[in-house]
Amino acid sequence: MPNAWNHGRAATDAAHWRRSSADTRRFEIEGTDTAGPTFGEPGRLTPEELQLAMRNHGLPLEALRYPITPPGLHYTLIHYDVPAVDPETWLLEVGGRVERPLRLTLADLRSRPRERLAVTLECAGNGRALMDPRALSQPWLHEAVGTAEWGGTSLWPVLADAGIDPAADEVVFTGLDRGVERGVEQAYARSLSLADARRPEILLVDEMNGGPLPPQHGAPVRLVVPGWYGMASVKWLSGIEVIGGSFDGFQQRQQYRLRQDPREPGEPLDRMLPRALMVPPGIPEFLTRGRFVRRGPHTIIGRAWSGRAPIALVEVSVDGGASWATARLDPPDLGPLAWRSWSFEWTAEPGDVVLACRATDGAGATDAPAWNVGGYANPEPHRVPVTVLD
Amino acid sequence: MPNAWNHGRAATDAAHWRRSSADTRRFEIEGTDTAGPTFGEPGRLTPEELQLAMRNHGLPLEALRYPITPPGLHYTLIHYDVPAVDPETWLLEVGGRVERPLRLTLADLRSRPRERLAVTLECAGNGRALMDPRALSQPWLHEAVGTAEWGGTSLWPVLADAGIDPAADEVVFTGLDRGVERGVEQAYARSLSLADARRPEILLVDEMNGGPLPPQHGAPVRLVVPGWYGMASVKWLSGIEVIGGSFDGFQQRQQYRLRQDPREPGEPLDRMLPRALMVPPGIPEFLTRGRFVRRGPHTIIGRAWSGRAPIALVEVSVDGGASWATARLDPPDLGPLAWRSWSFEWTAEPGDVVLACRATDGAGATDAPAWNVGGYANPEPHRVPVTVLD
Repeated sequence: MPNAWNHGRAATDAAHWRRSSADTRRFEIEGTDTAGPTFGEPGRLTPEELQLAMRNHGLPLEALRYPITPPGLHYTLIHYDVPAVDPETWLLEVGGRVERPLRLTLADLRSRPRERLAVTLECAGNGRALMDPRALSQPWLHEAVGTAEWGGTSLWPVLADAGIDPAADEVVFTGLDRGVERGVEQAYARSLSLADARRPEILLVDEMNGGPLPPQHGAPVRLVVPGWYGMASVKWLSGIEVIGGSFDGFQQRQQYRLRQDPREPGEPLDRMLPRALMVPPGIPEFLTRGRFVRRGPHTIIGRAWSGRAPIALVEVSVDGGASWATARLDPPDLGPLAWRSWSFEWTAEPGDVVLACRATDGAGATDAPAWNVGGYANPEPHRVPVTVLD
Repeated sequence: MPNAWNHGRAATDAAHWRRSSADTRRFEIEGTDTAGPTFGEPGRLTPEELQLAMRNHGLPLEALRYPITPPGLHYTLIHYDVPAVDPETWLLEVGGRVERPLRLTLADLRSRPRERLAVTLECAGNGRALMDPRALSQPWLHEAVGTAEWGGTSLWPVLADAGIDPAADEVVFTGLDRGVERGVEQAYARSLSLADARRPEILLVDEMNGGPLPPQHGAPVRLVVPGWYGMASVKWLSGIEVIGGSFDGFQQRQQYRLRQDPREPGEPLDRMLPRALMVPPGIPEFLTRGRFVRRGPHTIIGRAWSGRAPIALVEVSVDGGASWATARLDPPDLGPLAWRSWSFEWTAEPGDVVLACRATDGAGATDAPAWNVGGYANPEPHRVPVTVLD
């Protein structure tokens, strides 16, 4: 009994590839989605969103209780497929405007000085499904986040060994994951300015939480750019190219931008805005995920983070956002690049309430409008409806 | 800009708990979902389904390439919340109709003889979102499966040490995960007949793929019942009770049943029906997941399994199911309890095609109707639309 979802349709009836003279690995495909973003009806997920939701997953919010997220609970967003990579033959090519192009094996990278950092990564699209109109893409609610101890070696010394042309502008990072965007076959690729790439906390990572990097997190080697939304932390890394000028790749120029109109060039996304999430208290009903707690004292716990500046304040509302009180913010035990835990004492009275939490960092308010075409950087507080039972 | 999904509503405006005299930990909650299953509109996911989809996740189908699924890629279905369990104080209580009730620590279990088995687990609801009408629950497409090497100790010798009353009938397994179903607070619980519980391959598991059991897979200890749909493999195990008569818990009597009408008692689900899945060939478009391959020879690979009998035949169609050809079935390298790999040589000609695969086991056809109220055991072949480019 198939329905519309049985067919996860290929993009077109008449698509074909045309070989491009500039790059024999690059094809254009006619008839694929060239219209840019489209929007979903409120409360009704499309088959395309379901397909993405079944592949990618968030942090179940009760797992905010773990300071370091176990690997299978950390959010993943895989744009195309997890590529098959043999670590024995894998090479990282460092080239472009450098004096000495490098080809590094995994053993080469592992012989370099080791770093280990606790870093919170969040998808730029976190909260997208709560926006209205809602961009058709991965339909995150609140949970596209995780914190891991990433182990590897610092990026900048590798670039320094290659000898960067001082007149160069950007560093382009390319993954082994390939797919089609607006009719063009491509590998996932993102760039950083030379000034950004110089930050010592940016790592070439081959370990997660003390074990080998799992396939879905970019094995054998990925980039981790602390403080930025996850799109900068290129997985399944295969190439690093130093270029003059600005990188014009799809994920840089078209996809990860803040726009009020699809025709605008928009502003690039970079650092994570402040956000707080709570562990939903009590127990859930299976289907609705509605929460039930008993009357009396409860300690609400959660985590807060920002990629711009240290978290300055976490506030909690027990009346759906009508009033706010200050939560207790714990010390930054995991260091400056990871989330901080917080707690709040709540005396629950019978009835239906909506709990909420929000965070402020030391960098002040943002002037960006909340809604945007791509559904990025949703600033709404985390809201959790709860039924308090007598 | 909140919409309907911002509110993940608690189940009722007027719910409250009433204490039950029989069990002080058990409450009834008025006003929760008591209507039983309801159905979704074709092609339109509800907010409730989205919430479940964002928590639980399937195997990205390209990960069928791994004989043993890495932990973060194995499917998970978490009915309520992942409970917080301290392995230091965790105890397994074995009681009911036994001569010598036992209280076992994790160290006690680990001192027993060790077993390690490769086992394929599949959710009984796999394929639910492809049914029409579609039961509102976790909206699986094809991907609710995974194969792990589970390490632990055999169940039956533990029961034998406790000394089972020979007149007893069933063994009830209770987890630490608690939630609300049809207005009743409860822990997740399932039973096996004594005859089933005696099978030596049923394990009390504390290791997955050679490492500690991850929280989302039931740490510190879970049951694994090879051959059966995943609902039997109770996670976060806390109690084993030997009973006379038949267990009447919600997950046994109401939830995991094959029914044509919600008012029927229905037939219990147990062993996995035969199924084959393929690694979708080529590369995807991000949003539609539509696949593109180039013309010429391709080797399609996949996995097939059944909980009833060894896989006897895997067939592939390259014309949407109009005709079928036999795939090459590899030897059962992972043993009798895990999936088998298969492959098929395909010469792709330009145009749009729908690939499909299906499996047959040695136990013969099932006479169960394909559609059922709960959306279980969907027997449809796996279909993958592909655009072949010139």
